[in-house]
Amino acid sequence: MSEIRQDPTTREWVIIAPERAKRPQHEPDNTPTDIPEWEASCPFCPGNENQTPDEILRLPASATASDWQVRVIPNRFGALHSSGDTGRKTAGDLFRKMDGVGVNEVIIETPSHNTPMALMTYKQVENVLIAYKERYNSLKKIRQLKFITIFQNHGWSSGTSLIHPHSQLVATPVASPYYRRKYEVAINYYDDVGKCLYCDLIDEELNLGERIVAETGGFIVIHPFASRVPYETWIIPKEHRASFGLCPSAYLTELSVVLKNTLLCLYKELGNPDFNYMFDTSTTDDEEDPHYHWHIRIVPRLTTVAGFEMGSGIYISTEIPEETAKIMKKCVGSIKT
Amino acid sequence: MSEIRQDPTTREWVIIAPERAKRPQHEPDNTPTDIPEWEASCPFCPGNENQTPDEILRLPASATASDWQVRVIPNRFGALHSSGDTGRKTAGDLFRKMDGVGVNEVIIETPSHNTPMALMTYKQVENVLIAYKERYNSLKKIRQLKFITIFQNHGWSSGTSLIHPHSQLVATPVASPYYRRKYEVAINYYDDVGKCLYCDLIDEELNLGERIVAETGGFIVIHPFASRVPYETWIIPKEHRASFGLCPSAYLTELSVVLKNTLLCLYKELGNPDFNYMFDTSTTDDEEDPHYHWHIRIVPRLTTVAGFEMGSGIYISTEIPEETAKIMKKCVGSIKT
Repeated sequence: MSEIRQDPTTREWVIIAPERAKRPQHEPDNTPTDIPEWEASCPFCPGNENQTPDEILRLPASATASDWQVRVIPNRFGALHSSGDTGRKTAGDLFRKMDGVGVNEVIIETPSHNTPMALMTYKQVENVLIAYKERYNSLKKIRQLKFITIFQNHGWSSGTSLIHPHSQLVATPVASPYYRRKYEVAINYYDDVGKCLYCDLIDEELNLGERIVAETGGFIVIHPFASRVPYETWIIPKEHRASFGLCPSAYLTELSVVLKNTLLCLYKELGNPDFNYMFDTSTTDDEEDPHYHWHIRIVPRLTTVAGFEMGSGIYISTEIPEETAKIMKKCVGSIKT
Repeated sequence: MSEIRQDPTTREWVIIAPERAKRPQHEPDNTPTDIPEWEASCPFCPGNENQTPDEILRLPASATASDWQVRVIPNRFGALHSSGDTGRKTAGDLFRKMDGVGVNEVIIETPSHNTPMALMTYKQVENVLIAYKERYNSLKKIRQLKFITIFQNHGWSSGTSLIHPHSQLVATPVASPYYRRKYEVAINYYDDVGKCLYCDLIDEELNLGERIVAETGGFIVIHPFASRVPYETWIIPKEHRASFGLCPSAYLTELSVVLKNTLLCLYKELGNPDFNYMFDTSTTDDEEDPHYHWHIRIVPRLTTVAGFEMGSGIYISTEIPEETAKIMKKCVGSIKT
C-alpha cells in the first residue's frame, strides 16, 4: 500500500509508492563516463582562462597564471544584467514587469575537468564553499538584489551545458517564490509553536533516528519524510541561522566533509547520478530572521517530472526514505576521513 | 535587455532573456521518428486488449472486439489504490500521512500506435475529450477524492513510458497545492476587483491582441505574458466555469478543433516537440466557484529545469511570447478545417 506524506516545511503532499518502481522505464543516460582530466576546448580548463570573461575571484588569492584552485567568473550567457531599473512597470491592467537586473556568476570548482565534487579532496570542497560565501556576502550588499540562489547542476539531465565541474550563483531583484512559500509555513509554525520549524525538525529527526544519513557536531543529513524523489537529501546546520551568508567560516571546514561524503555516497550507491543541489537560504533582507533556517537540498535526477507533477504539484516517489537513508548511512559510516 | 515578468495568475516571476538562447546547448532527442502504425508488443494496440486491466470505458460504447476509438483502463502501475483510509495519521510530532487512496486511469486516445493528437481527426480528439469528461464526472462523485488531474505526456523527455498516444487521469484525496496557490491569487483578485481574474485576463488579452494565437466563439488560445518556457500555450474557455467537469458537451466539439490545431502548429513549428498538457481545474468541492476558471496549459519540453528554477521557483525563458504567438497565429490561420 502506498502512502501520501506531507512535507512539514512546504505542506505539500508526496505519494510514496514503492510498487511503482516496477513500471516500464525509458531512462536514457547521456552522461559520458570516459572524461579526460584536461580538455583543450573547455573554457574552464587551465590554460584557457582567456576564453572566459574577467575573473571576479580566484582561490588561493595569491595564485598566478593557471595555478588556481577555484575561479569565479561572470556567466557569459547569464539572463540578467548588472544595471537597470527594478521599479515595477505595468503592461496593461494585469501585467507587471521590470528590467532584467541581476547577477549570474559561475564558480569553476576545480582545475580538473573530470573531478566532480564527490571525488574532490575535502580541502577543495572547502575552497568552493569559501568562494560561495565570499560572493554571497559581497552581492548581498547591492540593495537592488533581494535573493541569491547558489546551485550546482551535475550531469546532462540536471540541465548543465558544460561538463567541467562548476556551480552557479544567481542574484535576483525579486524574492524566490519557492522561499516565500516555505517562509510562510515556517512563520505560521513559529507563531503557533513559538519555535523555529527547522530547529524542531532537527530534534525530531534525531529523536526518531530512522531518516538520519549522518550527524556531526554542526550538521545533520537526512532523507526527508516526504522525499519528492528517491534519495532526495537535505543537509541542515544544527545552529539556527536564516542565511548561508551568516554561516561562520569555521563551519565550512566541517560542511566540506559532510557535503563531500554525502555526494560520494550518492555517487557510489547510484552510480554517479545526475543531480542538482540548491542552497535554500533567506532573502538578503531576512538574514537575521528567527523563523527560517538555511539548508542544502540535493535532488538526484533519477526520474522525469511529468504532467501529473506539473498539473498537481504532487510528486510520486518510488523509494521509502527510511530505507534509502539506511543505505546511505552505512556508506557514510564506512568512509575513512 | 532581458525582462522580469510576473504571471498574474500565480504572482511568480519569470525572466524573459532572448539573448540566452545563444548559450551552448546539449539537447538529446531520444524520440524515434520512424514509428509503425501497429506494434505487436504494445499493450495499447488493437488485438492486445487482453494485456491491459479490465476496461472502464470504451468509445463508441457499441464497439466490439478491436473496433474501438478510445479505451479507458486502470493504470497497472498506478501509485494509488481504490480503498484505504484518508484520515490523517501522525508519524511523530511534525509528520502527517494517510493511505495512498486514489485512482489512476489511462486514456488510450486512438487505436493507431503512431498518430499523436496533433495528427488525429477532430472527431477523434473530441472522443478523447468526451472520455475525459465522462471519467472526470464519474470520479468526482467519490467523496474521498478531492482533485482530478488530467494530463498528457508526449515524447520521452515529457516523462512518458509508452509511445502509443495516451493520456492519464489521477484522482487524489488531497487538493493540488499548485491549484491552491492559483486559487489564493484568484480569490484575492476577486475580493479586490470583484471579478474573476481569468475573465479579466481574457478581456485584456483580446484587447491587447499581441499574445493571441487563436480565438473562437468559446475559447482563446494565448502565449501567456510570463511564459515559463518557450511556446507555453494556454487554452481558456471564454465562459466562466471553475471546473472542466461542467464544460457543456457542445463545447467539446469546438475544443477538439482548438486543441488539435494548437498541437498541430506546435508540431509543425517545433518539429514534433515533447510536451505535457494539463487541465487546470478546480477541486471537486469547488466546481461552482466564482473565483477560479478552468483552462488547459500546454508546456513544450524544450529546456531542462535546473538548479536555479528548483532553488528559486523563478523560470528563465529564451523566447518572447508576443513573438512566438505571432508565429503560432499565422500557422493556425493557415489550417483549413
